[in-house]
Formats: sequence, structure tokens, C-alpha cells
Amino acid sequence: MAIWLDRQADDFEQRFAAFLTTKREASEDVNVAARAIIADVVARGDVALKEYSLKFDALDFDRVPMRVAPEDLDAAYASIEPSVRDALHLAAERIEKHHRRQLPKDDIYEDALGVTLGSRWTAIEAVGLYVPGGMASYPSSVLMNAIPAKVAGVPRIVIVVPAREGTINPAVLAAAKIAGVDEIYRIGGAQAVAALAYGTETITPVAKITGPGNAFVAAAKRHVFGTVGIDMIAGPSEVLVIADRDNDPDWLAADLLAQAEHDTGAQSILITDDADFGRAVEAAVERQLKLLSRSETASASWRDFGAIIVVPDLEATAPLADRIAAEHLEIATADPEALMAKIRNAGAFFLGRHTPEVVGDYVGGSNHVLPTARSARFSSGLSVLDYMKRSSILKLGTEQLRALGPAAVTLATCEGLDAHARSVAIRLNPGE
Amino acid sequence: MAIWLDRQADDFEQRFAAFLTTKREASEDVNVAARAIIADVVARGDVALKEYSLKFDALDFDRVPMRVAPEDLDAAYASIEPSVRDALHLAAERIEKHHRRQLPKDDIYEDALGVTLGSRWTAIEAVGLYVPGGMASYPSSVLMNAIPAKVAGVPRIVIVVPAREGTINPAVLAAAKIAGVDEIYRIGGAQAVAALAYGTETITPVAKITGPGNAFVAAAKRHVFGTVGIDMIAGPSEVLVIADRDNDPDWLAADLLAQAEHDTGAQSILITDDADFGRAVEAAVERQLKLLSRSETASASWRDFGAIIVVPDLEATAPLADRIAAEHLEIATADPEALMAKIRNAGAFFLGRHTPEVVGDYVGGSNHVLPTARSARFSSGLSVLDYMKRSSILKLGTEQLRALGPAAVTLATCEGLDAHARSVAIRLNPGE
Repeated sequence: MAIWLDRQADDFEQRFAAFLTTKREASEDVNVAARAIIADVVARGDVALKEYSLKFDALDFDRVPMRVAPEDLDAAYASIEPSVRDALHLAAERIEKHHRRQLPKDDIYEDALGVTLGSRWTAIEAVGLYVPGGMASYPSSVLMNAIPAKVAGVPRIVIVVPAREGTINPAVLAAAKIAGVDEIYRIGGAQAVAALAYGTETITPVAKITGPGNAFVAAAKRHVFGTVGIDMIAGPSEVLVIADRDNDPDWLAADLLAQAEHDTGAQSILITDDADFGRAVEAAVERQLKLLSRSETASASWRDFGAIIVVPDLEATAPLADRIAAEHLEIATADPEALMAKIRNAGAFFLGRHTPEVVGDYVGGSNHVLPTARSARFSSGLSVLDYMKRSSILKLGTEQLRALGPAAVTLATCEGLDAHARSVAIRLNPGE
Repeated sequence: MAIWLDRQADDFEQRFAAFLTTKREASEDVNVAARAIIADVVARGDVALKEYSLKFDALDFDRVPMRVAPEDLDAAYASIEPSVRDALHLAAERIEKHHRRQLPKDDIYEDALGVTLGSRWTAIEAVGLYVPGGMASYPSSVLMNAIPAKVAGVPRIVIVVPAREGTINPAVLAAAKIAGVDEIYRIGGAQAVAALAYGTETITPVAKITGPGNAFVAAAKRHVFGTVGIDMIAGPSEVLVIADRDNDPDWLAADLLAQAEHDTGAQSILITDDADFGRAVEAAVERQLKLLSRSETASASWRDFGAIIVVPDLEATAPLADRIAAEHLEIATADPEALMAKIRNAGAFFLGRHTPEVVGDYVGGSNHVLPTARSARFSSGLSVLDYMKRSSILKLGTEQLRALGPAAVTLATCEGLDAHARSVAIRLNPGE
């Protein structure tokens, strides 16, 4: 049973506000442990990695090497089902094509005074992708993280992935091969983040780390931020479905469950203007839950965090959607574009009745790494820009310095910065 | 005396590597204190703010209100020197014009299959700018932080600034007025960051916090990251000057000191192909140091972190510059563009002999909030994009879903995600 909220009930605002602030993650305080592991890897390098892998992954680097050999990649690629291989290629192609459009253009120009100004974009020199092991080891995520880096022109792309007893999902390795990843290491956890950030004898440090991970990985990423760049700190996934009654309740129930099966902390929300339709979706969810191999996970997620919100009319949904700021927002109405135009905060929009969010997880072409836990209010999905950085450019001649210099001297003096003022003044009055 | 490094010395690599990893900040562990303050503001709101302001800023909100009144802004604007006012207006105009060019374009298109894909940019709904108090309370930084937010279209821009005994630098208030800031509060430290992130009775929370601050502010920003967005964690400033002998040593000495006077942890580096020229610059630095009001700060910075690196030829400088990844990079040579083309990592380039970095601090038009402490390897200066976020858009019809759906089902099944597979399959085979 999901929670029901009625927009027209007197206590709606209070209940909705409480709903928004419900924590969906045990905030395990793993900070201290993660910091100790990082310090240890900094101090002892490969030796520390060897010990942690033995301890956490039952993996001995004397028997299975830390680095995955090119032959292992080829073997994995050859071993997977041809239909999976084809689907990965189709996904990779579509992701690449879409992300190529995100490549920024340099903008170098001369203004009216003759000052040259500009923005120049360059790829980050090396990036590390964290790929989770076990149940959440998804080949699709390898494509979604690595291809934008490749499109950006990153010359060195490294993957770290925990390998229980040395084993890595072959589909993950096949995806890495398709995406053109340069190096893969069988390490995980905070120790892998430390190795990427600070380097060891075997691993040359990178400049930025992306990709999802457990609480230790998240704590480690937060800690190394500054030494290297990081992407967002990923939390459990969520979907908001806005739907009128002209939908098949079974279709939308399936969409809600596709989020719920990810994680007990995942969240699925339906907003509808028809309570009967809401009840039909709820019944369909209960029916379909029984069919899922991850039924327990999905049931817990739906029970603890699922919600059905009934509103008097769908047009009035925008302010609620903005406060929810969903990672995934499906709009299954007759005119989804009109409603989208009124909504500011969403990681990704899926429009119409034939765009289940799952298409975007795999083969839509857009990225499936999206801002969770209401962070779509201030951040964006992963893109080519996350693997690039911009340098600004300024060039003045004597004339331009004469035109702008005095104002710079005035402001520097006002700020009490003598040497700032002098660095301009000395060029304006070389005699002094 | 700065450190001297000779590219051709046998121990260069070793000394240069050590030089790069020298810590320039006391890494005060203020984490625990910052977290306690944040928890207190979350629990007690305005009451906590009142206590902290009394304690840290000798400011009683019963006598001077927390929020700055519009009349205070007008009075400050009227009170400052007309030349400063004019210079602020000139700076604001140039910053706005330059940043307008950074506004991203939406990109919504249909691919060959008829799938609609897209990227839509929207402004962040509310941002908070932290403005330091005391010595580092710079009106120029108010312009550099607020104007890009304004250009992005952020509807609500809030400033927090610690006000010792209620006093705020009038030039800071004038800059806030010019930039069109909506709300200003007399609060600072971790408590101000907490108020912006979580809100209090008086302050509505924002979605992102930018701007520099002390160790407490940095720790607080790192802590609230996730609840709100943050910009970079700013460290002490640095400049790298690459110069041939055809420069006036006094000019470059002034540029090096303009960084050094910021902070004892600031860093100024000269790379030259002429040791005699290097010595002339060093002598000029020593001479000019005596003239500065911040002589002590600049002397300490130059003594502890200043460096002169002599190389056999300037063309070979690029790999060194990339490893230094300077916040500010001046290239004072005959053909600075040629050298810039070989360098990947720099926050901002200042080209030629008439572009002292200081012009960029104030009136160049580009942003002076730039990546410090080697973070130009993976991050960029502040821009309009930092105040916006991108939503992706996907729309399929029945035909497109028929074309792409089967591959999505294949990948979902391979990943063991039944409900994902079902959410597509149920639309492909509605009968089942």
C-alpha cells in the first residue's frame, strides 16, 4: 500500500511537505571508515589495495591480476549472447549520436574596445569510472558513463569494479570494450576511489571520478572532492508519473515498479486527476508485484515510499512536480509538452503514453545518470560537459589597457589591494 | 626568497613533484564544529542564528535587523566615491555582456527513427551567494557571483555576509544593488550556509550556494552538498607567469605580488627561459614588497610558496603548466596564442604583455571565480551554466517503441530487471 495524498484535503500541505523530506536512505555514517581506508591507500599504495581486496572481495592479486587483460575483454565480448551484444551496440550508437550534439563550441571574439575575450573547452586529461559489483553491476551504466567521456575526447578512461573472487559480469566487460575504455582494475569500495584520486604503484591517478556506488564509495568521493573532480553523489532512484485516466493502468503500474525494483529506497509516485484511475493503478501494481523476481525489493519500496497523489486538475500539477524535482518524470497525457513547459525541475522528461522511462535507461540515446533525491532543483544529468572544462581567455593591447586600466586601479584601491593596483598602473605610467 | 627550480637539473622531476604537492592551507579540521552548527540551525532556526551572530560578529538582531533594508542599499550606493561607483558600473556592464554569450541553447530534435530527443535548460529557482566579511569582503566578487546568476534568469538571488557589529562594506552593498540582488542577510559562517540550505523562519531555503569563505564555510558547504548544490571549494589563489626576457621585470614582479598579497597561502610562479631575467624579476619583487600595505602577507606568500622555474626553451613549458594547472596563467611572450594551444589545464589565460591578470579581476568581463589548487585539471571558472540545469527529453510513439523496445527488453532482462522489461513489453504486446 502506497501513501495517498489528496491535493484538496485540508492537511495536504503538511502531509506533502513531510512526504518530501522523508529520508529514503539509511544515512550510515561510514565517513570515518572511508577516510581511514583512503589514508591507508595513500600511505601504502598497492599493498593496501591487495589487503582490502582479499578482505572485502575474497580476491587475491597473486592469483588474479589487479588489471583486466585485453584478452579478458575480448573473451567476455565473445561470450555474451549475440542479442545482448547487438542491443549494447545499438545503445552505444544512439548514446554516442545524442551526446555528440552536446559538444560545446569555443567562443573567442573581439569586443568593441578591441579586447579579445573567450571561452575555450578542453577534455579532462583522465577520468575514472566507478562500476558497482554484484547485483547493481549494469552494462548499461558503463555505456552511459564512458561514452560521454569518449565523445568529450578524454584521452584516458579507467574503470574500477569490485570483482568478487575475481569475477566481473561479462556484459560489463563487453560494454567497456564497446565504449573504448582504456584500463580496467578489479578493485572497489573506498580503496578504489582512493587509488583513482591519489594513485598507487600500479594506477596512475585520474583528474575526475564518476559513477555510482554504495555508502562507502559515496563517502570516499565526497572526501577526495577537491583533489579530483567528482560527479553527483547518487542516491536511490525515483520516478514521478503524471497521468490522466486515458491510460492503461497496467502500463503505468509497470513503470512505477520499474523504479521500485531497483532498491528498497527507490520511490515511485503517481499524480492523477482521477481517484478511480489511481485505485486501478494501485491494484495493477499489487497484481504485478507478485510476478517479479525482485518482488521483495519492489514491495518494500512501494510500501515505504510509493505515493498516489490526487489533484483536481493536471494543469495545477506543475508546482508539486517542481517541489518533488523528480529524477524521471513521465507525462502520460494528451498534451505532455504543454505541461512540461510549466515545470522547471526534473532530471528527464518522458513524454506521452509510449515513452516508458525504461527506454531512456537503455536505448533512447539520452543519459540515464540523472539527479536523484530532489537534486534536479540544482543539477543536471551526466553529459559531455562533465568530462570537459572551460578556460577563459583575455588579451589586451596598450590601447585597451588604457581604456580599462583606470577603472581596475580604482577598484583595486577601493579593495585595499595595492599590488593589484600597481600591476595595472605600472603599465599605464611606465615612467613612474 | 622564492624557490628556484632548474628544468635541466638532475633532481628537477623530484623537486617539481614535491613542489606541486606542497600544501598551502592549514587543513584545520573544522568539520565537527561546522556540523554541530548546521544541526543547531536546523533544530532552532532563527534563534540559533541570533546566538551565533552575537557570539561571532558582536551583532544583536534586536538592534540591527538580520535582513538589510532596501534603504540601506540605496544609502550605501549613494555614499561611495563616484569613481568607484562608475568603475563598478563599467565592470558590471562588461561582465554581463560577456556572460550573456554563455547562455546555452535548448536542443530539441527528431532523429531518423522519429524519436524526439532533447536538452532543455532552465535557471535554478533560488541561489545563495556567500560574501566574506572583513578583509576579504570584495565588491568585485559580488558582481562576479551575482551577475551570471542574473543572466541565467535565477528569479531569487540571496546574499549572506557576516556583519561585524552590524557593519557591511558599503561598496559590497552598492555592488549588490547594481547586480540586482533580491535579499541580503547579515549572517556568516557555517550558520549562514545552514540557513541557506535548510531555511529558518526568516530565510526561505535556496537550491544552490556559491561564493568563497573561510574553513568553516568550506566545511559547511561540503556538508550541505546534496541537499543543495555548491560551487567549487575555493582555496588560496595562484598565478603562473610564463615570460621571455623581452619583458619589463618590474611589470611581472607586480603581477606576481598581486597574487601574493591576497593570502599567505597564495602562490606566484614565474617560468622563464632566461635565468638572468628571473633574477631581475626576483630583485624587483624584493624592491616592490617594501611598498605594499599588505607587505607582510605578500612576503610570507612569496617566501613560502613563490617559485622561479628556469627552462631551456619556453615551447617546452606546456607539460609543466599542465601539471601546475594554474588558476591564472599569464603568457608574456611574442606569440602567446601558440603556447596556449599546447596547454590543456588553466582556469584563465591572460595573453601578451599588456594583460595583467588584475584586469580580469575587475573589468575584463570574464569571471574571476576560477579553479584553484590544481583543480583546473577538472573544473572551470564560474559561468552562467553554474546557475542553470539541463533536463533531457525523450518522446516515442508506437512505431518508435516497436523499433527500440525489443533491445531495451533484451538489456533489462540481461540485467535481471523484470519490471523494466515488462514496462516495455506490456506496450509492445498489449494482449499479454
